[in-house]
Amino acid sequence: MARTGRRPGATRTREEILRAARLDFAEKGYDGASVRGIARRAGVDPALVHHYFGTKDQVFVAAMEIPYDPGELLERIMLDPEHDPAEAVVRTFLRVWDDEHGRAPFVALLRSAMTSERAADVLRGFMTDVLARQIAPKIGVEPLRAGLIASQLFGMVLVRSVIRAEPLASADPEQVVAHYAPAVRLVMGERR
Amino acid sequence: MARTGRRPGATRTREEILRAARLDFAEKGYDGASVRGIARRAGVDPALVHHYFGTKDQVFVAAMEIPYDPGELLERIMLDPEHDPAEAVVRTFLRVWDDEHGRAPFVALLRSAMTSERAADVLRGFMTDVLARQIAPKIGVEPLRAGLIASQLFGMVLVRSVIRAEPLASADPEQVVAHYAPAVRLVMGERR
Repeated sequence: MARTGRRPGATRTREEILRAARLDFAEKGYDGASVRGIARRAGVDPALVHHYFGTKDQVFVAAMEIPYDPGELLERIMLDPEHDPAEAVVRTFLRVWDDEHGRAPFVALLRSAMTSERAADVLRGFMTDVLARQIAPKIGVEPLRAGLIASQLFGMVLVRSVIRAEPLASADPEQVVAHYAPAVRLVMGERR
Repeated sequence: MARTGRRPGATRTREEILRAARLDFAEKGYDGASVRGIARRAGVDPALVHHYFGTKDQVFVAAMEIPYDPGELLERIMLDPEHDPAEAVVRTFLRVWDDEHGRAPFVALLRSAMTSERAADVLRGFMTDVLARQIAPKIGVEPLRAGLIASQLFGMVLVRSVIRAEPLASADPEQVVAHYAPAVRLVMGERR
């Protein structure tokens, strides 16, 4: 039944390397992370990381491939008639970022974008091309307003989960939703 | 009239080193910046940087000493009866961050806080101890709400000036104020 040339356990090893890479990029940023450090964290030989993914740059791209499409998730939330979109988007952001593994690829990207032009390009590209040009019109929000909503959400998780400033870092998620969702709704404006 | 032992021009040289340090930390973050790189940018010998400031850590602390007190500025803005505080705070943030030299110490701190625990401590300390515990009560804003306003402001400058995602990066400042200040006002809540 073996349809591929992969050794048993190869998929699991790849996944473990990617998981280690997300944590390493999240903690150290693009410049600080290394194939050696990722290999150590995954408990494998650095040669295996090179074998599966190639260079650090290629590991980065593979690790940033989030297991779901954030744009699609955002569209689904915004167009769900059952829930208030502002509350749902704040709640979803908090749920993803309050979980160490959930936030790892995003922290990695944000942290890397702060110190590496290569990573900043990835994030800028997503926000400019995907969020503002593709998603915003679909959900009926002006592009500038979509950018300002992204500002609110990124700022919230930056202060809560990356800088970990109190009292926001320890605040109950539903209390954060109650205080913040109305402001997100206001920036959203009249949806067309 | 020489009251100190400093050579003529020493103050100017110190200022040039600090200015170079702010740009270097802003571009590369704490871990990426170096005394050698700062010296090169300032056009001086690395020994002079060590002579004036000591280690990289000490250069960082000196460079982060922003030439005014951000807490005091914030208090003055919030308590000024002539202007709407939400509009004034958004406008001031944009003015400081739209200027390359104005934003340099803050970008340096934010970028460094993303990759260095030492720098994250500085920012976390400011937000938890100064903003939430000292400033928030003085301006009559609940600490959690103050943290969420900081989230909105940090997020805005992060997306506009660090990630530089469009259309926010090129938007007219007054248009940003018009869209964003009402949301800041809403998070501020009823001031006591």
